[in-house]
Amino acid sequence: MTELWPLESLELEDKPREECGVFGMYSATPVDLAWMTYLGLFALQHRGQEAAGICVSDGEKFHVEKDLGLVTQVFDERKLDTVRLANARVSIGHVRYSTTGSNLRFNAQPLTTRTNKGVLGLAHNGNFVNALEVRKGLLDEGALFQTTNDSEVMLNLIARQAKEDLITATANAMRELRGGYACVLMSRTQLVGFRDPNGVRPLVIGQRDDGAWVMASEPSALYAVGARLIRDVQPGELVWADRDGLHSMMVHAARHTPCAFEWIYFARPDSTLDGVSIHESRVRMGEQLARERPVEADIVVPVPDSGIGAAIGYARASGIPFDYGLYKNPYAGRTFIAPTQEARELKVKMKLSPTSAVRGKRVILIDDSIVRGTTSRQIVNLLREAGATEVHFRVSSPPITQPCFYGIDTAARKELVASTHTIEEIRELIGADTLSFISERGLEAAIQGPGVCLACFNGDYPAGTPLLNDVDKLALEV
Amino acid sequence: MTELWPLESLELEDKPREECGVFGMYSATPVDLAWMTYLGLFALQHRGQEAAGICVSDGEKFHVEKDLGLVTQVFDERKLDTVRLANARVSIGHVRYSTTGSNLRFNAQPLTTRTNKGVLGLAHNGNFVNALEVRKGLLDEGALFQTTNDSEVMLNLIARQAKEDLITATANAMRELRGGYACVLMSRTQLVGFRDPNGVRPLVIGQRDDGAWVMASEPSALYAVGARLIRDVQPGELVWADRDGLHSMMVHAARHTPCAFEWIYFARPDSTLDGVSIHESRVRMGEQLARERPVEADIVVPVPDSGIGAAIGYARASGIPFDYGLYKNPYAGRTFIAPTQEARELKVKMKLSPTSAVRGKRVILIDDSIVRGTTSRQIVNLLREAGATEVHFRVSSPPITQPCFYGIDTAARKELVASTHTIEEIRELIGADTLSFISERGLEAAIQGPGVCLACFNGDYPAGTPLLNDVDKLALEV
Amino acid sequence: MTELWPLESLELEDKPREECGVFGMYSATPVDLAWMTYLGLFALQHRGQEAAGICVSDGEKFHVEKDLGLVTQVFDERKLDTVRLANARVSIGHVRYSTTGSNLRFNAQPLTTRTNKGVLGLAHNGNFVNALEVRKGLLDEGALFQTTNDSEVMLNLIARQAKEDLITATANAMRELRGGYACVLMSRTQLVGFRDPNGVRPLVIGQRDDGAWVMASEPSALYAVGARLIRDVQPGELVWADRDGLHSMMVHAARHTPCAFEWIYFARPDSTLDGVSIHESRVRMGEQLARERPVEADIVVPVPDSGIGAAIGYARASGIPFDYGLYKNPYAGRTFIAPTQEARELKVKMKLSPTSAVRGKRVILIDDSIVRGTTSRQIVNLLREAGATEVHFRVSSPPITQPCFYGIDTAARKELVASTHTIEEIRELIGADTLSFISERGLEAAIQGPGVCLACFNGDYPAGTPLLNDVDKLALEV
Amino acid sequence: MTELWPLESLELEDKPREECGVFGMYSATPVDLAWMTYLGLFALQHRGQEAAGICVSDGEKFHVEKDLGLVTQVFDERKLDTVRLANARVSIGHVRYSTTGSNLRFNAQPLTTRTNKGVLGLAHNGNFVNALEVRKGLLDEGALFQTTNDSEVMLNLIARQAKEDLITATANAMRELRGGYACVLMSRTQLVGFRDPNGVRPLVIGQRDDGAWVMASEPSALYAVGARLIRDVQPGELVWADRDGLHSMMVHAARHTPCAFEWIYFARPDSTLDGVSIHESRVRMGEQLARERPVEADIVVPVPDSGIGAAIGYARASGIPFDYGLYKNPYAGRTFIAPTQEARELKVKMKLSPTSAVRGKRVILIDDSIVRGTTSRQIVNLLREAGATEVHFRVSSPPITQPCFYGIDTAARKELVASTHTIEEIRELIGADTLSFISERGLEAAIQGPGVCLACFNGDYPAGTPLLNDVDKLALEV
Repeated sequence: MTELWPLESLELEDKPREECGVFGMYSATPVDLAWMTYLGLFALQHRGQEAAGICVSDGEKFHVEKDLGLVTQVFDERKLDTVRLANARVSIGHVRYSTTGSNLRFNAQPLTTRTNKGVLGLAHNGNFVNALEVRKGLLDEGALFQTTNDSEVMLNLIARQAKEDLITATANAMRELRGGYACVLMSRTQLVGFRDPNGVRPLVIGQRDDGAWVMASEPSALYAVGARLIRDVQPGELVWADRDGLHSMMVHAARHTPCAFEWIYFARPDSTLDGVSIHESRVRMGEQLARERPVEADIVVPVPDSGIGAAIGYARASGIPFDYGLYKNPYAGRTFIAPTQEARELKVKMKLSPTSAVRGKRVILIDDSIVRGTTSRQIVNLLREAGATEVHFRVSSPPITQPCFYGIDTAARKELVASTHTIEEIRELIGADTLSFISERGLEAAIQGPGVCLACFNGDYPAGTPLLNDVDKLALEV
Repeated sequence: MTELWPLESLELEDKPREECGVFGMYSATPVDLAWMTYLGLFALQHRGQEAAGICVSDGEKFHVEKDLGLVTQVFDERKLDTVRLANARVSIGHVRYSTTGSNLRFNAQPLTTRTNKGVLGLAHNGNFVNALEVRKGLLDEGALFQTTNDSEVMLNLIARQAKEDLITATANAMRELRGGYACVLMSRTQLVGFRDPNGVRPLVIGQRDDGAWVMASEPSALYAVGARLIRDVQPGELVWADRDGLHSMMVHAARHTPCAFEWIYFARPDSTLDGVSIHESRVRMGEQLARERPVEADIVVPVPDSGIGAAIGYARASGIPFDYGLYKNPYAGRTFIAPTQEARELKVKMKLSPTSAVRGKRVILIDDSIVRGTTSRQIVNLLREAGATEVHFRVSSPPITQPCFYGIDTAARKELVASTHTIEEIRELIGADTLSFISERGLEAAIQGPGVCLACFNGDYPAGTPLLNDVDKLALEV
Repeated sequence: MTELWPLESLELEDKPREECGVFGMYSATPVDLAWMTYLGLFALQHRGQEAAGICVSDGEKFHVEKDLGLVTQVFDERKLDTVRLANARVSIGHVRYSTTGSNLRFNAQPLTTRTNKGVLGLAHNGNFVNALEVRKGLLDEGALFQTTNDSEVMLNLIARQAKEDLITATANAMRELRGGYACVLMSRTQLVGFRDPNGVRPLVIGQRDDGAWVMASEPSALYAVGARLIRDVQPGELVWADRDGLHSMMVHAARHTPCAFEWIYFARPDSTLDGVSIHESRVRMGEQLARERPVEADIVVPVPDSGIGAAIGYARASGIPFDYGLYKNPYAGRTFIAPTQEARELKVKMKLSPTSAVRGKRVILIDDSIVRGTTSRQIVNLLREAGATEVHFRVSSPPITQPCFYGIDTAARKELVASTHTIEEIRELIGADTLSFISERGLEAAIQGPGVCLACFNGDYPAGTPLLNDVDKLALEV
Repeated sequence: MTELWPLESLELEDKPREECGVFGMYSATPVDLAWMTYLGLFALQHRGQEAAGICVSDGEKFHVEKDLGLVTQVFDERKLDTVRLANARVSIGHVRYSTTGSNLRFNAQPLTTRTNKGVLGLAHNGNFVNALEVRKGLLDEGALFQTTNDSEVMLNLIARQAKEDLITATANAMRELRGGYACVLMSRTQLVGFRDPNGVRPLVIGQRDDGAWVMASEPSALYAVGARLIRDVQPGELVWADRDGLHSMMVHAARHTPCAFEWIYFARPDSTLDGVSIHESRVRMGEQLARERPVEADIVVPVPDSGIGAAIGYARASGIPFDYGLYKNPYAGRTFIAPTQEARELKVKMKLSPTSAVRGKRVILIDDSIVRGTTSRQIVNLLREAGATEVHFRVSSPPITQPCFYGIDTAARKELVASTHTIEEIRELIGADTLSFISERGLEAAIQGPGVCLACFNGDYPAGTPLLNDVDKLALEV
């Protein structure tokens, strides 16, 4: 055939997507905060690849720069220079994952605005489940909304309290909004951080030897700027750093239910959240899975990179050798183009390829999750073509059957394969010899015992659900 | 010397700068409004070269695209496609001149926002002299400001009137704001235009054979989309087009004092504003200047392109031959780089060069205005080096001594050469044999008789002046 | 209609196209030659807008940078820095017009190559009529050709003479190649310039007060770098500058027949070539045309900018007033997009628009040439729609009926309207009331008397024609 | 300190660099070869990240596109379209690693040229050790060189043989050039591949079910286009595909000594070269290392990704658990910016970070090689800071003490830490508790027994060394 197919850009992942990573820093002594924030965001890049932004103030000037792209794409020397200040005191930064659309640039964060409390910058991770309801009320009072960011709702709530200072106004706004969120907020002289009452989304505090305070979604970002982890921000806690040091106010805590997916997939293996090491919990998930779902086989092979920890655990608990059966092309970025018809299969094939380790072997394949299942089928297929005689698929998270309302994009419910198929049907679909998921209890045990949010597995939403489900109707296409 | 100088980008002009050009269109039948607006803005490009933006709605969707650059730079095929709608009904567009700074992108227009009256887009030309005062009040009530655009003040005033419809709310906002302005505003179903009570800034209405209504800063933009000029919007008038046709409301008119500089320099020679042809008025300015300030010479030479009309008039009234003594390099755009020290002289030299027509001649040089005078000195110098024996400088506007508060950037008062020097001193400074400016009365006569705004020449501001002169203090650096 | 048309980029011109402009400089004392060459090329930008390149050596290093685009697009601060040398001694530069194709970048000049005479850089303007023949011979001897530039043929001829020095080898190569050309060539220590035996293409020599030697296609480029015009390079002359000064060798001169189109259209009005001022010759063409082809009318209107000189001349000789009847949009660059069907008409409409000067008037319209005639028809139409009662079209060049083989792209013969239509047919086609062209003799007289190359008007090719007309067959699509 | 440091882009690697990857395809039936070549190059991206190029012919047209950047950066939809041909028959492609300089773009491959054998395209991997000598001779005969590519020497040698056909001329050129190389060459109708007499650089042949022939540096690229591995091209073999199928000619074979570094580091773990699986040989290297250099410890940790295979082997042979002790940031690309002073340390810190797995553990750290050693010191340091109590460094290649003349950039000899330090000194330098390298014999055994090229370890160059060591003097800076 001589037909030339139209090419298109491809997503190479079938994973839940974190909405964001946040970072903030306050230094009483002059530090190159623009560059520190760049370092911090670089360490959080895995939490959002669509947009990046940095905001810096020296107490007078207030600079912001943000755009679509990776941190290293948005900020070259010249761009970073535009936010650098010789006597910088406060800064925040943000990386964002977001959905397609024509004007994403306007939704990049931090969102900055002038208010009766001076210029403010806000970067948030997560979702307010009653944002639309609150937004509607604000519109009726004459507010303008220039983005579809939840951040703008929060900023309006703060600005409406003309008589209150920034901290009190922020605490009141926290009381008005529900959901799973972790935010950093800055004025010209203060760095503020706060976490939802259930602690669904993570936020940690660090400090450098020179006294500078740092807040970030993960400890990895603290290390990147030379800070040590002090502690996690508590669920429902509001903290702020200024010239007098670090302060805290407990606004309203509820049952602590951090998102399980931080340990399953999102957070970096070198991070520790709420006291639990990501890597070690993944090894425990693998060990638990081996105990719950044993099978006779020759090698344990991870889907790189996120399955490595659980595969090590499975291999240890089962005594079956760990091997490097799937190679991940490190250049498999986001801009790969492919003919439309072949896209499905190519996207996996160009990213993963089997090594000779699987030839003639019974393989236990370890992945962290299955969302749509399309990728899984192709990976199984790749292994079989490479000579694997059996493929036993083990998943270190339970089946995902429900949407997340706290900032994770797991795809629409009808696209979730486990929402519409039995496990046996999924097994058949993906062509594995056996398929098993870790149990909810097993997962909890591998993390920190009871209390993690498992809503996407069992529909039990600890921080509430949206009242209005008319997101699309209200959405502003600008 | 082996020293390598740092290079920098140069402005090649020493002219007053128009802040903006606006365009809007309403069509009851489907028309490619994205492209029509592109055509309209292209015809208005001379009114602003820093940023361009287009906003289109089909009654449901509401698309906007804007960025820094010329219309043809901001909009290539792909970008224009992002705002195209198959059943487009309303559109507005904007070209902007603006000052330097790090985040100009956020100030590009049209400004779009979601309000209790639905999504609105606003593009404005000119300035509200009490914008800062009104803005301060709005901040105190809890408003957020994300730009430093006057447009955002106007939009807040409209949104605050939650019970009023768009037209009434806009009329009330007009009553609250003072200054010189011409705006186009759109909702999903209406195109609105309004002009300040003095008609300082221009706005015209046109219609196409298919019934579509067009509003624009100059008739040239109407012709560009196949519309004929219906009339100028009246001072203080509010007009709007919707499915029922064109409507008008007179909000509050004052003495009609259109900006003289539209005829002197800004508007295209093929435009007619408030009934007066730009080109013909320039010829009359030249004739008037010849009568007021005659001199014996061999040829009349315009500073191209803006001096051509007046030079033709001067030549006609004086009987001295018109000649093409200065060549303007058509590639002398905005991105020319040059060593810092040489920038001053080079910027003129690379743009203008004398032809052999001036050799051995007594030259009458016609320019439309003198702002700082630096350019004028170099042009005189160029002519002398090329062999002109005498250079008689004639200017078709009076000496500029005052700032404009209605949207024109004439430079700070201390930079205005006529504000700090006598005419004889200026003559000496620029090295001309004689130097004369047209009189205020002569200028009025050449335009349309008494009534044009001459504030930058005589300090008589018909539309008021700012109460607060703390622009810099309040300015939001984001 | 709701159909959305595909958009495409447009050429806004219907004029012959010059292939190139060249510039070279030799300085015994350190000068920032990269920047000097930038200035020189900027002044020659009108001779080629597709690509620009600069080559600089300090006697050791040899830097080159070239790309598609205008001089100011190819060279920003950073790019110019890559060719800057602290002790630069020799430099050449090139601007190019070229035809469409996928890999134009490889054809950008200067062409640089390593040979047995060291590294050489060559920039040429014009065409060798026997280039393909010579190229074929070189291929048979084992030469590689990486471009389709004639320059590469010249460089191969030079390199083949392994025993000769650069000057002798270049002189011999000149003897082998025929056609119309003007070149600058540099080694690490010499700047060489040469012009074809008929002097069809122009080349001038200038000198700065500091002793630096400059060579360029037009004197405008000399003035741009602070040099004064010394003289034109003679037809068939080879000149070179090195540490010992400027040298000359007369290689083989023939009848001097410079290209008439340099005076008609190509060269800048502020240039003087072979002793004849461009602007003044254009005024004489207009005067001559008025004498040859008088007509009763109210105003004389030029098609800007190239028709201005002749319009002034016509107005003077006829006594009919010159007026500014057509406004040229200075932003009408090369990247305008338009729906395919409307492209033809729009391209003129967006570039030119009539002023009120033509309303009710009998207009004599002065243009420098008619190639395809499509543009002319639309200009006439624009004037009529604007109220011109009569349009008398006068052209300051004779009808173009033949292709140029010396570096000018006049379009294919079948596209030349004067090659396939009588003047009366053309008049009807373009809708003018009368149409007249200047006579060949009249044109010669307006330039410098007998001797200019008029081949595109009468087919008399003074420098020969190609033997092989198989350009397309041999062309290398890389 | 308030000093703001200048930022610069960083290389994040301290590894030998492969010069190139090559790919070629011949199809008698129409296939979208542009896209196939894109896929093939994408699979070879790890072999060169500086530039990419594709060349396609349909028997008539001959398109080439190449530029600096990754395959996915150089080729978006539009760019790939420019080389697509509906009836494509032959294509080649190239990815390149290359050194810094101002005009790298001109050195991108494939190199295309017109010769007496028609248009040719050549892409090569490796180096001709006598290239400069041959080049000098060609210059003396009048050849031009426009690049510093060895490819251009090869093409000149081919073109000089005017009477021979392409295959014979290529075979003769192979006889004249010495070194380690693997090339693909195409005319409009033939795809040619050849490998040096020692088979130092790899080249494999594959075929698709539709009969299309593929040649590539690694089998991974065959799989990427749906072809199966047929065989390796033999040392000294010349193969070509045309409408009559695949042909072979043995030109001149020598002792087969493939480059050991293909197995140690360069080739993808999913590739098999000369019959030996890359992944399995790496596991064997680890096993061998464990036997040669045992040590008591708690965990075996690879430096990801290249150390994974050997770490698995070491863990298996020693019985010490494999663990995931170092996380590699997948976004650690080439464009990271950092203050100059901190660059050294940051480049490692931003790329690698220790997980909690190493806390309190005695760690065996497995890396594939040590070049300068700077990175190694920092990795050891990272592990200690993260709580590792002992760090035993094991390297799966012998100490690198000599430069490679066959296409690998290992850094200058004086920068090779093992060239100037004893192993004990290196151990002290990098701060490890113990340090051991695999033995040469052990490495050979892990690959394929005697015969691999170990020149960079022991200075025994099987394919000769350069006669002239004046690369720098001859280098063309263009």
